[in-house]
Parts: sequence; structure tokens; C-alpha cells
Amino acid sequence: MAVALTILTEPRDPGARRTLDLAPGTSILRAAQAGGVDITATCGGRGRCTSCRVKFVAGAVPPPTIMDEVQLGPDLVREGYRLSCQCVPCDPVTVQVAPPLEELSFQILGGGPGPNALSRVALDSGIQKQLVKVALPREEHHQTSDLEQLCAAVGLTPADVGTSVLQGLPAALRDDPDGVTVTTFAAGGAAGRDRVLAVERGDTAGMKFGLAVDIGTTSVVTTLLALDSGEQLGSVSSLNPQAVFGGDLMSRIAFAQFNPANLRKLHTRIVGLLNQHVEQVCRESGVLAKWIYKVVVVGNTCMHHILLGIDPSHVGLAPYAPVMRHPLVLPARELFLKVAPEARVCLLPIVAGFVGADAVAVALATRIYESAEVRVAVDIGTNGEVLLGSRDRLWACSAPAGPALEGGQIRHGMRGALGAIDRVEIADDIRVHTIGESPALGICGSGLVDLLAVLLDAGVIDWTGLIQLEARETFPPKLRARVEMRGEERLVVVLRPGEAGARQEIVLTQDDVRQVQLAKGAIASGVAMLQHVAGVPDAGVTELMLAGGFGNYISIASALRIGLIPPLSKDRIRYVGNAASLGAQMCLLSEAERGRAAEVAARIEHVSLATHPDFERIFVEAMNFPGAS
Amino acid sequence: MAVALTILTEPRDPGARRTLDLAPGTSILRAAQAGGVDITATCGGRGRCTSCRVKFVAGAVPPPTIMDEVQLGPDLVREGYRLSCQCVPCDPVTVQVAPPLEELSFQILGGGPGPNALSRVALDSGIQKQLVKVALPREEHHQTSDLEQLCAAVGLTPADVGTSVLQGLPAALRDDPDGVTVTTFAAGGAAGRDRVLAVERGDTAGMKFGLAVDIGTTSVVTTLLALDSGEQLGSVSSLNPQAVFGGDLMSRIAFAQFNPANLRKLHTRIVGLLNQHVEQVCRESGVLAKWIYKVVVVGNTCMHHILLGIDPSHVGLAPYAPVMRHPLVLPARELFLKVAPEARVCLLPIVAGFVGADAVAVALATRIYESAEVRVAVDIGTNGEVLLGSRDRLWACSAPAGPALEGGQIRHGMRGALGAIDRVEIADDIRVHTIGESPALGICGSGLVDLLAVLLDAGVIDWTGLIQLEARETFPPKLRARVEMRGEERLVVVLRPGEAGARQEIVLTQDDVRQVQLAKGAIASGVAMLQHVAGVPDAGVTELMLAGGFGNYISIASALRIGLIPPLSKDRIRYVGNAASLGAQMCLLSEAERGRAAEVAARIEHVSLATHPDFERIFVEAMNFPGAS
Repeated sequence: MAVALTILTEPRDPGARRTLDLAPGTSILRAAQAGGVDITATCGGRGRCTSCRVKFVAGAVPPPTIMDEVQLGPDLVREGYRLSCQCVPCDPVTVQVAPPLEELSFQILGGGPGPNALSRVALDSGIQKQLVKVALPREEHHQTSDLEQLCAAVGLTPADVGTSVLQGLPAALRDDPDGVTVTTFAAGGAAGRDRVLAVERGDTAGMKFGLAVDIGTTSVVTTLLALDSGEQLGSVSSLNPQAVFGGDLMSRIAFAQFNPANLRKLHTRIVGLLNQHVEQVCRESGVLAKWIYKVVVVGNTCMHHILLGIDPSHVGLAPYAPVMRHPLVLPARELFLKVAPEARVCLLPIVAGFVGADAVAVALATRIYESAEVRVAVDIGTNGEVLLGSRDRLWACSAPAGPALEGGQIRHGMRGALGAIDRVEIADDIRVHTIGESPALGICGSGLVDLLAVLLDAGVIDWTGLIQLEARETFPPKLRARVEMRGEERLVVVLRPGEAGARQEIVLTQDDVRQVQLAKGAIASGVAMLQHVAGVPDAGVTELMLAGGFGNYISIASALRIGLIPPLSKDRIRYVGNAASLGAQMCLLSEAERGRAAEVAARIEHVSLATHPDFERIFVEAMNFPGAS
Repeated sequence: MAVALTILTEPRDPGARRTLDLAPGTSILRAAQAGGVDITATCGGRGRCTSCRVKFVAGAVPPPTIMDEVQLGPDLVREGYRLSCQCVPCDPVTVQVAPPLEELSFQILGGGPGPNALSRVALDSGIQKQLVKVALPREEHHQTSDLEQLCAAVGLTPADVGTSVLQGLPAALRDDPDGVTVTTFAAGGAAGRDRVLAVERGDTAGMKFGLAVDIGTTSVVTTLLALDSGEQLGSVSSLNPQAVFGGDLMSRIAFAQFNPANLRKLHTRIVGLLNQHVEQVCRESGVLAKWIYKVVVVGNTCMHHILLGIDPSHVGLAPYAPVMRHPLVLPARELFLKVAPEARVCLLPIVAGFVGADAVAVALATRIYESAEVRVAVDIGTNGEVLLGSRDRLWACSAPAGPALEGGQIRHGMRGALGAIDRVEIADDIRVHTIGESPALGICGSGLVDLLAVLLDAGVIDWTGLIQLEARETFPPKLRARVEMRGEERLVVVLRPGEAGARQEIVLTQDDVRQVQLAKGAIASGVAMLQHVAGVPDAGVTELMLAGGFGNYISIASALRIGLIPPLSKDRIRYVGNAASLGAQMCLLSEAERGRAAEVAARIEHVSLATHPDFERIFVEAMNFPGAS
């Protein structure tokens, strides 16, 4: 017998609730997902994180599982918290989703300033619009058609015209005495003839727009550009709605493997989000969606495959081969994208299973491929990438940091939204800054990096990452009072209720420190491995470029302190904005750049970390913190 | 205030009913169509026929309109019949749809025997299947992908592979140690490179099928062929479900013009029917739909445009220009056709607004284009076509006979289903034969042609078509009793209740005779005009070929007697089966034939009847009947 499961979806609005049937043996998480209620499950519902925790509000609280005890600790368990992925109630219950899911308007860098690469791009989007007068068929014995008359006017053949153009053609040709505006696309290079994308009544030749889309594991950024000026007219960022099915790539691939309907769910979610982005960016800018004729999409291999509805299962299994790598151009209607139906959707090429089109876009935007000296580009994200090289050779590897640096899998972690602790200082005590100077709700990635850096400096954490409970007598009194053993867990109380407006305690646990160590270890070992393979010592790196939504908010000093990046002098480290999105924008505005993407992708040498004999040693080293500076 | 409208949809099952809301001012027909209840409206709801008649079963019967009185006559009006297109009730009512709509299994010629053209076609469908072993990516440092490995095995490039092939590629490549079967399509002529349509696990190289589809205004015929043997494995015929929105092309175009949602309705109906055909023909033959890799579609210009979702409005307005004419090849997924997603759907080229791809297919199947002597091909149908010529020159015109010869717009007309009178003889009295020798229900086209022929011979109708009421004293007594004036209408009682099992009287009215005259006049004047334009007297016509579903059932003697076809000796007249479908089958089996279709279409000279100065004279002559032979 199914029992009733009531979920309070909004902590601040007790009226927001959904009641679902819970079949026997079904977890709360699975029932919620099946019923369309979003509960974040960063680890993919494997009991490995706390993101899916719920609080029991009514009904019998089931006994805690081992995972509840390990992940949530005795206090939360006592307060009625459980992991919804592990919890299988037998009686009707009411639960509250925690943490709040409304953190949708957080800081992700849009195109941003960065190296201002776009201003150096020649405007050559391939999209042309021209006003033409078409001689209509006039006599019955003239054996011709609307399409043939149109083709005669623009010098193309019927086979060059997209089929959905035909549907409205007779009306368009007859509606306006001024003529019709014909939109064509000329792919760069030797990719063939022009293609007619749209025929519109009257003169709309000035209306020519495009989208650059960066689909990250955690965040999706869509930018609207005017194709004839390069001007950025709007940008929208959102959480990737697939995140409720798993926070990192491997969880999401596991979800897709589970059954084919899941792949469809992931695919539908991302297409739905892109259409929301189109609607929003069009509404805010006053541009009509039908005037968007070109879309350039970048993303890692898994996001790329899911967007195309391709099974990514084997991307997650050795040897991690992608299903396809070549650049693809397809009409928007095939993806059900609500822009001009024949708009060209261009997917940039892929290098390898875990070095995707986003890495190619970063290479383009940073112009690392034409650098005379060796440079490094680090794209920090849930599934980050590292590039190292120059115009001579170029290497890349993946740096699967996981979601910790975006606040995921951290006890009081959160994204960079209002109320997130984003800066931390220490003297005799911890002092925090929150985004918007709002009451503190949790810690975001840049706050975590700062926090670890100052705790290292203060000796609260040693080089192995252990919280120094035994040495706390040597700390200043106020700091000393924050370091404690609670149950079997070492932790630092960052804020007590009331401090910085916090309504509840905010702590950093020993496990949180380990999560950050894993994340920074992934990135640092990626850089170190590429240096090792390429034989480039730190002194040989002319510049290190920090890219990605997160990379632009961290303190460089703190990043150096915790060893997230190699020990270069600060003047050799530069923020370059959301370089993946920037690369997509360059390909949107310039077919020459899009052509270059294929050349650059072919030049990048993929370094597979896991199979390299020296990797384990390097990774273990990279997990540790550097000695005090 | 809306009132309740209850419709009994099945005369033989009073339980089959639907209740709909009828908004004020809405006709029963419109409310039924909006609610998804099919009522046939042959004239498009203009009160010009009786096909949409309903019988009031409960509720107040509204007073008859002029159209009710003209079309239905006083008897039916008194019995509570009304035209649903004209009837706007104000109170709740229950009506019975009449006639029954279940006449779905009537005689349409499938491929049929005809000239056996198919056996003369070289098998060259363009579809190839081969079993290949693909070397999977094995090492992480190999920068490759599933697709690149596949392409290496078959000697093609990633751009040659359809996008929906990618979705299941990784599973297919890993599922079977025997390898995968790769299906490719090589378009005939210089149409470019091979294209990969499917990749399937294991060896399925023997499974290679295709469909030939003939979309007529009234009937749709789908034929399944084995591409490697040419064997016909199954055939399905149905009424075109668009017929409920108008029986002839002009009514259907008017319906599409009314609003864009109507075009979508027409489009959805035909795609839905084709998918039903796919399902049925696959079920009956045991072929899997995913093994259907090529589909060839023929139809008149309007049907062709609607299938593609193209607005046909302007095909119905002078100068009747089509929107496009070139042969088109598109993937099945674009039409949402449930065969292999990348199957190639090939639409044959069009000649003019009213000389469509079906006429081109008739030219191909009859090989009239290579004839040394002048031949004529007449495709009899609601929207028929006439072709005349030889290998030197070839002319074509449309012959819009309307639905009368298929039983439409005839008081007791019906399609060639069980119980239809299909043969008529006369001596001292009328003697009929019915299809299946079932109790007589009505008259179908071949019965009508026979009936008019014998009534002409007996002098009951004169050469102008007038029923000879005044001369009936000269007829044999039994026949005399059948000719009467009822109200203001001349009619011939073909059967009285009880005769030939008829449960009700079956009559031929003066108006019925006029409808047949219009139909046969359209066809005869088409032939006459082409002879006139080409300067070919009757003696110059070596052969006349009767094509089309209906053309194969009429008696040649009767057709000659009423002047449906020119007065040639019988041995110069031949039935050629459903030549349009046959032509589609030839193009399905042979890319050479499909290439020839484009050449033949380009050679056909369209003769526009309406604008020709001699047409009116010829048409008026063709309306009359020839003198007694």
C-alpha cells in the first residue's frame, strides 16, 4: 500500500507543499523526483553528501541509517533530519526540504570583462540578411513556383532552402510590397553553399542576433549578442536543472545509465532551460526569438552528449571515449529550441571524454594556442579543465574538482548567493564578510578558500589538513573557543548564532576540509601533471589564467596559500572571466574563430591522469597544503 | 450560454455517443469538428452537398434552412434530417450522424497488376546494409570517438552520419560480438556522398524495406516492398482522413485558409494516418518499422504541400502556383514518421499547381515518355489528371472531376464498399449487382456510369442529360413505373424497398445526373483539350490508359457510352491499375527511376484549361452525352 508523503517545498512558506504517493520500498528522494518535486542530490542519491537532507515535520521519524549518522551527525539526526535518498518511510509523513532551493540568482560570471577578446574578433558571423524583391508567378502557363522565384532573386537553388522556410513562404512573399528579407548562413571555410534560414515580410535586415551558450555541470550561461555589432544585449545564468539528478558528472552519468527514460529527463531539462533562457533574454532585451539565427554551444563532453540526446554512459567508463568529437551544425528545430526554426546551432568540437568543447572555447578565448611563451589556463568548475602550452604544443587534462568549491558536499556550504560568507579574515578571531552583507546563511567557495588559508596561517589546520585540536591552547582565546571536538568530529565553529546575523551555527568540519583538499588536489595535480608531462617547471610558466565562474571570485593570495594553484608570483596570475562563454561568443561572431576551434581541438594533446604512472604520487602531494609562506 | 449537443456516432450502436458544448451561433458541424467527432463534409461545410446530414433524435428540430430544402428535399426534412453545416440549434439536442462513417474497407486498387512495370525495374534502391566490425576505442590516450571508429570502418566521415544514429551508437557498438550492421543511402546521380541511416547490433543485412505512399484527395494507399527483391509484402488503403474537412481540393484549401490551426489539423491527420498505415503493414507482414529505410511519396500538389506543413492557400488562387516543385529528400524524423528516424523520405517533383507528383508517377509507370506513338493516360480521381504525348512531347492537365464518381455528392451515392450497386443492366427493367452480393445500400461510381449508360440506351435520359418524364409512355411498363416527378424533382427509382435486399428506396435524381455530367465533363474535356493543343485527332491516339483506383472498376463500354473517354475502339483502351502508386514503387526500388522522375517532370508541359480560349466550348460539349451508338 502506498502511503502519503507531504513535502514542504519552501521553508519560508509553509503553504507551499505537495502530497505524493509513496510506494513501499521507495525512498523519499525517488518519490519526490518521480512526482516532479526538485530535491538536490549532489552525489546522485548515493548517501555520500547531505544535499538531499529533509527534516521530519509530522509523522513517525524512521530510525537513522548508517549513512544518516555518518553524513548528518548525531545532532541533526536527533533534530529529525534524514537523507531523503536513504529514507524509506512506512507511514504517512510530512517533511521539509532543506536547504532552501531558491538559490537561483547567485553569482556566476556572465561574459564578463576578462581579456576583452571579443573586441579583437572580426565580425564575420556568417549570417547575412538582404531585402529582395521576388517576382511572383503571374501566369498559369508559367511553370514555376514561389520557391523557384525566390531562388532566382537570391542566386541559390531550392536545395539550399531549409524546409521550414517553405511553410510560411507564400504568405511572406505576398504580404509586403517592400519585398522580403532573406536570411542566409555562409559557413566558414569550405563547408559548402549558403543556406536560406528565413524569409520574412518587409525589411528586417537590421535584426540579426545570436546566442552563446555555456552548459556547465552546475551552471548554464546564455548570452545574447547583436551579430552586426558584437554588442552584448543580455545574459542569463541559471543552475543546471540536471543537478537534482546528481551534482557531478559521474553521478549524472550513473543516473542516465539507470534507465533510458532518465537520459530523456536530463535531455528535456536542459532543452527546457535553454528555452527559458531564450524567453528571458528576449523579453529583457526586446529582441524577437525569430531573429536569433545562430547559436554556439559549448560544454563538457557529457553535457554536449546529453543535449543531443546521446547516451553518455560510456563516457563514464574506461577508456572514457566520447561518442563523437567533430564540430556539428544542426537546425534549431531539431533540438526544439525556440529561436528561428532553421537557425544554425553550432556545437564546438570535443577533445576527449573529459576534455570537452568548453576547454576548446577556453583555448580560443585565452589565445593560449598562439602564445610565444608557455601559459596555463585553469577553468575551475565542478568538472574543471587545465590547459598548458604555447603556439608550439598544447596539452589538456580534466580536473574533476567536484562541487565542493561551489559549496556542494560541505556541511554548511552554499552557492555564492545572498548571505554566503565569501571573505574570511583572522586576527584574534574569525571575521567574515557575506554577499550583500546579509545575515550569514552558509559558506560559498571563495569563503571556503579564504577560511582554509587563514586557518592554515593561524595554525588551526596543519599541512595535512588535520584540525589541530591538541594544539589549541596555543591559539588566541577567542579562536581557541571555536575549535572543538563534537562527538567524534573535529570542527571549527565559524559563526555562532547571532554572529554576523547567523540564525544558526555555521561550522567547518574535518570532513569539509577533506572535501576542499580533494577539490584543490584535483586542480593542483592537473596543473602539476601537465607541467610534468611538458617538462615545464614553475619558473617556465609565464602566466596562469584563472577562468570559470568560480575562478573569478577567489582571492589569489588564498588560492596560493592553500596550493590550489602553483606557487607563482601574483603578477603572473590573471583572472580571465568566463573564458568558455567568451570562446563561444567569439565563434558566434566569427566563422573564422569557429573554424579555428576545429584546428585548436585537433592540436590539443589529451593527458589522461588516471593511467599515468606518476599521477598517484603527484595527487597525494597536491592534496596536502603548502608550508607556511 | 452553451447548450449540450449529443451526437450518436454509430448508427448500429446507440451506446456510441459523444456530448459536446455547443456555443451560441455555432453549427453542429463546427462543434463536432472542434470536439473531435468526424462528420464528413464533402463540400467543406458550404451547404452544397448532403454528406454532413444528421438526423434529430431528441430535442427541438430547428426549422429547415433553404439549403436543407434544396439539398435534402421535403421528405428528409420532414423526417428530421438537417445539414449539420447549416444547423445552429439553440436548445440541447441529440443527433444521429448519417450516413455511417465506417465505410473504411472499400475497394481501392492497391499496386494491382497493371502493366507490371515493376518487374522491369532494375533493383537499385540506394539502400545498402553491411555487417562491419568496428574497433572500439581501447586506450585513454587514444584521441578518438565511437563515431570516428565507425567512420573508419565504413570509409565515410562524421558529417555523413545522421544525428539520430549517434544516440544509440555506443550501445550498438558494444552489444554484439558479431559486429554491427550499417545502413547507408546512396542517392542516384550526382546528389552527393553516401549517408549513414542506421547502425544496428548484430547482422540484420537481410532486413531492408521501403514504403510507396500515394496520397490522393480521397484515398491513401501505402505499399510495403522488400528492397532487395522488389517483392510486395503488404498494402493498406484508407480514406484520406482530411476528407471530413472538405471532399475536393478547393474545399480543403478553403478550410486551410480559414485559419492556421486548420492547416495544422490537416497536416496532423495525414501524418497520423501514415503512421497507422506503417503500424498495420508492419504488423501484418512481420517487418519491424525500424527496418524501413526509404519512403517514396506521391500526391497532388495540395496533398504534397499539406504533408510538409506548407500553406496551400495560394495553390487555390490564380495563377495556382505551387510553393515548391523540386524533388525533396528529408529524414523521416522531420515528418514524425515512425519508421527508421533517418529513413529517407523522397517526395517526387511537381509540375504545376494542379499537376502534381502523382501525375509524374503516372508518367513513369505508364512509360508514356518513351512511347514512339501518342498515348493518353487518364488518372481518374477526385482530382484527376490527363497526360497525352510520346517520347517527343508530353502534355498534362488537371481534370477536377470532384467526388461524384466516388459516390460523393450523389443522393444515394456511396463508395465501392459492401452493398454498393456496382453494375447495372437494363432490359424491360433495371437489374443491379451489388458488391459482395449484399443487400443494396447505395450506388458507387462504376454503378453510376453503368446506370447512366443503360438509361441513355433506353432513352430514359437524353443527350443533354434530362430525365425524359414526358416520353415515359414509350418505355416498357416496369421501367416506366420507375421514372417519376416527385415534388419538383425528376428522378428514377433504381430500387424500391425489398428489391435487391434494399431496406430503403434508392433513387437517381436529376441533380445526380448533373453531378456525373460535371465529373465526366471534366475528364472528357481534359482529354479533348490536350488533343486540341497537341493537334492529335482520336485516330492519332494509339492507346488510352485508364489509371487510378476508380478507373479500374468501371466498364469500358459504359465509359465510352457516356463519353467519359473519347470514342476509341475498345482494344485501344487498357486498365493500368493504380499507376501513381506504381510509379512511387518504381522510384522506391530504383534510384535511376527516381532520377528519371525529375527529367520527366521537367519535360511535361502543363496545359492550363481555364485560361484557354477554347476551353468553355469544349467543356460544354463534353458535358453532353454522345448520341446512341
